[in-house]
This record gives sequence, structure tokens and C-alpha cells, in this order.
Amino acid sequence: MMEERETAYERLKDRLAAVRDLRSARSLLFWDQQTYMPAGGLAGRAEQMATLSRIGHEMLTDAETGMLLDSSWPEQSSEEGALVRRARRDYERATKLPSSLVAQITRTTTIAERVWVEARAKSDWSLFAPHLSQILTLKREAAELLDYDDHPYDALLEGYEPGAKKARIEAMFEELKKGIVPLIRAVAAQGDGNRATPLYGAFGEAEQEEFGRAVVTDFGYDWERGRQDRSVHPFCINFGPGDVRITTRFNKGWLASALFSTFHESGHALYEQGVNPAYARTPLGGGTSMGVHESQSRLWENLVGRSRMFWSHYYPKLQGVFPETLSGVDSETFYEAINVLSPSKIRVEADEVTYNLHILLRFELEVALIEDSLSVEDLPDAWNAKMEEYLCVAPKNDAEGVLQDIHWADGLFGYFPTYTVGNVLSVQFFEEALKAHPEIPTQMEKGEFSLLLSWLRENVHQHGSRYYPDELVWHATGRPLDTIPYLSYLKSKFGELHSLA
Amino acid sequence: MMEERETAYERLKDRLAAVRDLRSARSLLFWDQQTYMPAGGLAGRAEQMATLSRIGHEMLTDAETGMLLDSSWPEQSSEEGALVRRARRDYERATKLPSSLVAQITRTTTIAERVWVEARAKSDWSLFAPHLSQILTLKREAAELLDYDDHPYDALLEGYEPGAKKARIEAMFEELKKGIVPLIRAVAAQGDGNRATPLYGAFGEAEQEEFGRAVVTDFGYDWERGRQDRSVHPFCINFGPGDVRITTRFNKGWLASALFSTFHESGHALYEQGVNPAYARTPLGGGTSMGVHESQSRLWENLVGRSRMFWSHYYPKLQGVFPETLSGVDSETFYEAINVLSPSKIRVEADEVTYNLHILLRFELEVALIEDSLSVEDLPDAWNAKMEEYLCVAPKNDAEGVLQDIHWADGLFGYFPTYTVGNVLSVQFFEEALKAHPEIPTQMEKGEFSLLLSWLRENVHQHGSRYYPDELVWHATGRPLDTIPYLSYLKSKFGELHSLA
Repeated sequence: MMEERETAYERLKDRLAAVRDLRSARSLLFWDQQTYMPAGGLAGRAEQMATLSRIGHEMLTDAETGMLLDSSWPEQSSEEGALVRRARRDYERATKLPSSLVAQITRTTTIAERVWVEARAKSDWSLFAPHLSQILTLKREAAELLDYDDHPYDALLEGYEPGAKKARIEAMFEELKKGIVPLIRAVAAQGDGNRATPLYGAFGEAEQEEFGRAVVTDFGYDWERGRQDRSVHPFCINFGPGDVRITTRFNKGWLASALFSTFHESGHALYEQGVNPAYARTPLGGGTSMGVHESQSRLWENLVGRSRMFWSHYYPKLQGVFPETLSGVDSETFYEAINVLSPSKIRVEADEVTYNLHILLRFELEVALIEDSLSVEDLPDAWNAKMEEYLCVAPKNDAEGVLQDIHWADGLFGYFPTYTVGNVLSVQFFEEALKAHPEIPTQMEKGEFSLLLSWLRENVHQHGSRYYPDELVWHATGRPLDTIPYLSYLKSKFGELHSLA
Repeated sequence: MMEERETAYERLKDRLAAVRDLRSARSLLFWDQQTYMPAGGLAGRAEQMATLSRIGHEMLTDAETGMLLDSSWPEQSSEEGALVRRARRDYERATKLPSSLVAQITRTTTIAERVWVEARAKSDWSLFAPHLSQILTLKREAAELLDYDDHPYDALLEGYEPGAKKARIEAMFEELKKGIVPLIRAVAAQGDGNRATPLYGAFGEAEQEEFGRAVVTDFGYDWERGRQDRSVHPFCINFGPGDVRITTRFNKGWLASALFSTFHESGHALYEQGVNPAYARTPLGGGTSMGVHESQSRLWENLVGRSRMFWSHYYPKLQGVFPETLSGVDSETFYEAINVLSPSKIRVEADEVTYNLHILLRFELEVALIEDSLSVEDLPDAWNAKMEEYLCVAPKNDAEGVLQDIHWADGLFGYFPTYTVGNVLSVQFFEEALKAHPEIPTQMEKGEFSLLLSWLRENVHQHGSRYYPDELVWHATGRPLDTIPYLSYLKSKFGELHSLA
């Protein structure tokens, strides 16, 4: 019996490894498209991506996979058990969708993304609206086929955050709103007094790049297993744990853009580089969810990269890199500049606090779109009304309003809330690491991060997708996702910055 | 009936398009590996490549492909007929090889390539020899399975040059030897008097790159559908006609390296960019054989790029780019420098004439290896003996001898002779273009190439793989491959350079 089971397990692993190889190849095609591909390559690339998607889906959902899954029953607590459990979950989810629908979603969103670029450039909602309608029809169909207990949105959310539910996300936002909205009002009453000014000026691209590389090298990013390139939208991508790449964009007039996105993407990369190498080419390889992934990127970006401790070591170095622009700016002024709390129209430029309201707005709107209680036609007005309500700002046009993000054009319904899940978890993990290693702040003041990284490696990174997000959070922190530490952190940090009671 | 046939044809095309997409994806993986991939990515990349190879092979050789091929019978003279003919040929060849053997060859050569790099660095034949033995065993097995009339080498040659035979290649070399060997002896009797000196000196990398880019832009290379990167071994690769890339390596001390390899690779690229776009994702997409491909690269490298006409326009520009190094070198001295005829040990540094003897040597040795009349153990001595016989030079060690080329490590037995086929065809095509457009030389003297390119587009490029190489050569020049124009060209050019009778 044992031998037969092992054989089935090996065959299952081989099969899933090939599915994984196809996904890695597709990721490389995506990376190339965003970094180096000439314009003429687009049509061919869309076909190559669609073909790899379709074949991967067919291979995963083949009856043979189901048969092998049925014949493999190692104990759930073992690595093998965890692998089979995750594989079965992926298989069952995938088999609910016909390959034709998967291919149609890929095709429709590939076209929609191109139209969205044009619509945003022209600030013309009417160009994009019919494509969004098509995507919503397909996504609603997918949600029905995927099935759900309470709400169709749950079926989509599951694709990015296994185990998450709309109702729990709503509860999380309710808790956050209670703490965040009063904080924003209190700070807004003071005005920001042009605190952000030091971040604007002349910052050479090569110098920005070199400084960013030096910092993420100190974080622990392994350049033998990664590289950094330029792209319009920064991202992190991997083709297995041996090749985890980040991209950055540079703004010569605004220091914050490349600086914090480099820290952010390296946080994603440290996660992927830290996964147990034995999980390569298995369903356990790679981060367990987008929310947990975002917790890692936010942790390095904000809890490390926007902290006084960090800059007490790095600010003199940064001044050395940009002596003309920063020599008259002291460390505390710089710290205030990178922590301005001020409602804005653009999500990717938002501060740590108001960022969550940008996400709440998108979450509520996409739930309404999926359940069809909001029409595509009415979306821009609904967007602007919520911007006014939550952030007290009014977009001048749709380009800086409803058309600002790529996600819906890419069909990523259910993705947005994982950003706020990540924010909440980043503090929960960080505080747990501090409890285990109280010397972490002292290390940070010396530009050292080994204790922090080793705690993350041990409690988060190495496990890859062995645990579902909830299990991992329990495992690492002894309780479920918890908004209290996050709210305390925000109140303490911004209260101190603005001398609030 | 018609409708049913069309349906089968459409289904066949869809199937073959997916096979093509997998091949394009694999090509991108290869490109990335040679240009940007971090060292840590190698193990994962080898698996991804092997998986794409295997799935592509399984898809092509699936019974469904055979069934569709049987039910499609458009006329042979039509594009559809040509497509089915080429598809059937690819299918029949592929079905003779089991997927396991295809995967094993990929795996074995991936490992062997890595060992070869080390063996060459250490000049240690014993490291590489056992891997070459393994490859030969697999290649001989493949040759037997592929089947042949006269010689197992024919089965392998067919993979790179459809329709070619060992016996015809031997006849070609016999004709060439009769013309080339006396020419080499006559020139060698004079000595080269350090004619190559002007190519050595300080040549900035950025300047070399800019000059090369400007020239290939003039040739007609379309940067909207391509790009240039750096790699250890220059190559051209494409992922459809909309994305045809070249790579280059730069030597700051030797101008010839990047200059001529850029011209060479752009010749390959012009071919691929010129294929009828309607052939994209079909078996007719891409060049018809390696020999015809090499004819295009050699044409732009040698017949254009090493000609007086070309440099009468470009040499003043090159002097402007490198005023310090070249101001004292006149145009004729430079022309002599880039056309030094002198036997050397390294193929990729060889001149136009002796290059063919490097190929002859490799061709004879690989035929002997495949038929097992030469053992791997005896190969280094056999190599050195032939170097002495054909080129009167003696490699100091195996690194500059039998270990210099990557081809055998990659399992490319049957590939080498296509280089000389390309040399011969380059002149045959060029002379035909001159007959059709006698103004080509006048254009070249002005840095214009539109007539030459349009003749190549019309007679070679656009057809992609619609015709087999022999058919294409007949179609374009009215006769089969012909060594006479090539030998006349060499005798005339080098006879004039060396004032021979």
C-alpha cells in the first residue's frame, strides 16, 4: 500500500510541477512585457499568454489530476499532507471553470487593459465602460460557477485571499474607520504646512537607484537570486525561489516615488526568496495570499522605511548622496516629510493612514458592481461621491478618479481589500517580532536587519503556502487578524507627529 | 465537404498555433537566460524549458494532429497547401521521437552546457568527454528513430536544413576546397604585414553601440519590432514577426567583434522581420532553414559590411566616432584591416575565406562521431591533426581547440555545415539582387539599402517557411545552390587585395 501511495504522490508532484513551470513561464512573459518588450510584440505576446493560461488550466483540471488527488492521503499535518490539501483546493476551484471561460477572461482583459491605457490618457470613461461591462459579465459568471455560501464576491475574494469573506472584510473596515476617521480629522484641522516640500527637487536617477539598492541589500535581498529593472508600474515577480525580481520607476523631481516603492517591492521579494526551497515547483511554493504578501511589503516600506530608527542611520547617507538638495533639511524635518498625513486623490501616492480609505471605497464599489446593485454607467458618479465622503476631495476628471487604477481592467475583482489586510497584518507581525527580539530597533538604528528578517523567515517566509493565511497568522502571532495593534500604531505615530492628545 | 475541410483546417491551425506559442515562450526563456537571468535562476529555468519542450512535443505529436492533417487537403501550390505540407513534415519527424527522448536530450544538453563552460575555462577535456558520450548515444538513437536512406548524419542534418544530405555537403566542400586552398596559400606566401592593427586600440563601448545601431537602422532593422541587448554569445531570436531581437558583446580593445556581429545578427533579424505577417503562429512563420538564415546574416556582414562601397560612406562617420584611434588610418587601410585573410585557431574570429575550413573540419569530425568511426577519446587529437592539415595552426590547448564551440554541448549535430551553405548562398542571392537592381552599389555608397532589402524581402524574407530551401533558391535565383559565384567573389576580392594574378 505504502509504495503505491508514494508512486501516486510522485506522479501528482510531477504533474503539478509542470503546471507550475507553465505559470513561471507566463510570469516571465509578463515581466518581459512590462520591462523590455518592443511595442510590436504585443499581439503575439497576448496569444502566448493565453495559450500558456489555457494549457496550464487544462493540465491542472485534467481527470488524471483528480484521480491522483483521490489516491493520495498523507496526514494533513505533514508537508505532503499540506501539499495535497493545497493542490486539492486549487484543483477543485479550477475545475469549476471551463477552459473556454478562463481563455475568454484572459483575452477580454488583455484587450481591456490596452483600452484602459487610452481611456485614462484621454480621461474618457465612455471608451472603457463597455469593456468593464464585458469583464463584469464574465466575472459574475465565474463567481456563480465557483459557488459561494453568502455572496458572489466571496467566490472572487477567495482567489486572492483563501478563506477570506466579504462579511469579515466589512467588519475589519468598520473597526478601522472608527479609529482612522477621527485621526484624519484631527490632523486635517492642523493643516500640513507644506511638510512634504523636502521630497521635491532635483534627485538624479542613478543616485536614487544606487541608494535604493544599498538599502535593500542591507534588508537582505539576495542579488544572486534577483535583479531590479525599470517599469511603468513597479512590481515584484518570481519564477521560483531562485529568481525573484523587482521593478522600479524613477521620478527625478520627487524622491518618495522610487524610494518607497523599492522598499515595498523588496519586501515582497524577501518573502519569496525566503520560501523553503524544497517547495519549488509545488503548490506550496510562493506566498500564501496577497494579504500576507502585502503585509511583508508594507512592513519594510512603512514600519522599517518610514521610521525614525531607520532614518537615524540612513538619513546622513541620503544627505551625502544629495548634498545640494538635502543639506539644509534636518533629519526630523525629513521624517515629517515622509510621514505627511493628507487626503489625496491618487491611491498610490496616499499616506499610510488615508490609504485604507482609498481601499474601502474601491471595495464597496466593486462589491456593488459584482452584485449588480451599481451599474457601470453610474460608477464614475458613485466614485466621486465616495471620494468626497471619505476623503473630502473631488477628482477633476475620471483620469484622476475612477480610471486611475489598472485592477478592474485586468479583471482583478476581490484584490483591493488585500492591501488593507496587509496593512493590518504588517503591524501584527512586526510587534510579534519585537516581542521575540527586543533588540530589533537597536539593530535598525545601525542599519542592520538580521533579527527582523530571521523572525520573518522563520514565522512567515519559509512556510510559503503550507498554511492558509488564517492559520499562518495564528501560527505566527497566536491570534487571528487583529486591527488593534495597527490602530494603536497609527494613533501613536501620527499623534506624536501632530502633538495630539 | 468544403465546410468540413475548412473546419479541420482551422482546427489544425489553432493546434499548431499553440505549439508555436509554446516555442515562442521557450525562446523568451532562452533569451532571458542569456541576457538578464540571475545565476540563481538556472535550476528552475532548466525545468521550465524542459516542460515547455515536452508539452510542445506532446501537443504536436498527438493523434489529433495526425487526424487533422489527414483530413486537410488543399492544393499544394496554395499557402494553405504549403502550410499543411510543412506541418505534416514537422509532425512526421516529431512522431518518430518519443517525448521521453526529447526531454532526455533537453536535460542532458542543459547539464552538458554547464559542464562545457567549466571544461573550457579549465581547458579540461576529461570533464566534458563523458557528457559528450551521453549526448552522442542519444543523438545516434534519435538518428535511428528518425530514419534515413544513406547515412545517420542525414537524419540530423534534416533538422536544420530540410532536404540537405551529407553527400551533397561533401560535394560542396570538395568544390570549395579546390578554390579556397590555393587562395589561402597564395595569400599566406605574402604574409599579412600586420594589416589588422587598426582594429586594435581603445574603442568606447557606448560609441561602438551607437554606431552599430545607426548602421543597422539604415539597413532597415525596425526597432519598434525589436531591441538589442548584451550577451556572452551574440544571437538573434524572435517570438513572432513583431518581436525580433538581437544581442551583441563588446570588446573595448578590438573593434571588429561588436561591429561585425551586430551586422551579422541584424541580417538574421531582417529575415524574420520580413516574413509575411499572415504566417505568424503557423508552421510557415520564421526562416526556412539555418543555411538560408545564415545566407542573410553573412550577406549583411560580409557582402555589405566588409565592402569598399559600404565603407566609402561609413568610414568618415566611424572616424568621427573614434577620432583619436582612427584619424591616422585612411579608408583603404581600414578596408584592408577588416579583410585580412589569415588562418587562425578560433572559428568566430576567422576571416571570410578560412572560416569555411573551420566548418569543414567540424563537419568531418561530427560525421565520424555520429557513425562511431571516431571515439570521443580520440577527438582532441583528431581535431588538432585537422587544424594542422587545413589551417596550418596548432591549438595550444583544448580550450582554443576542440572545446571552443558550444554546439556539441548543446547537441547541435548537423548544424555546422549550414554556416558554409549560408556563405555560398549569400553570394548567389546578392548577385541575383544586383542583376535585378544594378543601382544597389550606388545606393550602398550613399548608406542606402532599400533596393537590396526590397529584393531580399520579395524573394527570400516574405516567404518564411513556405518553400523548402532548395525550392526557395530555385525560385529566387533560377538554379540550385551554386559554389561558382561564391568562389569567384572570394578570388576577385582577395585577389585584388593581394594583387594576385
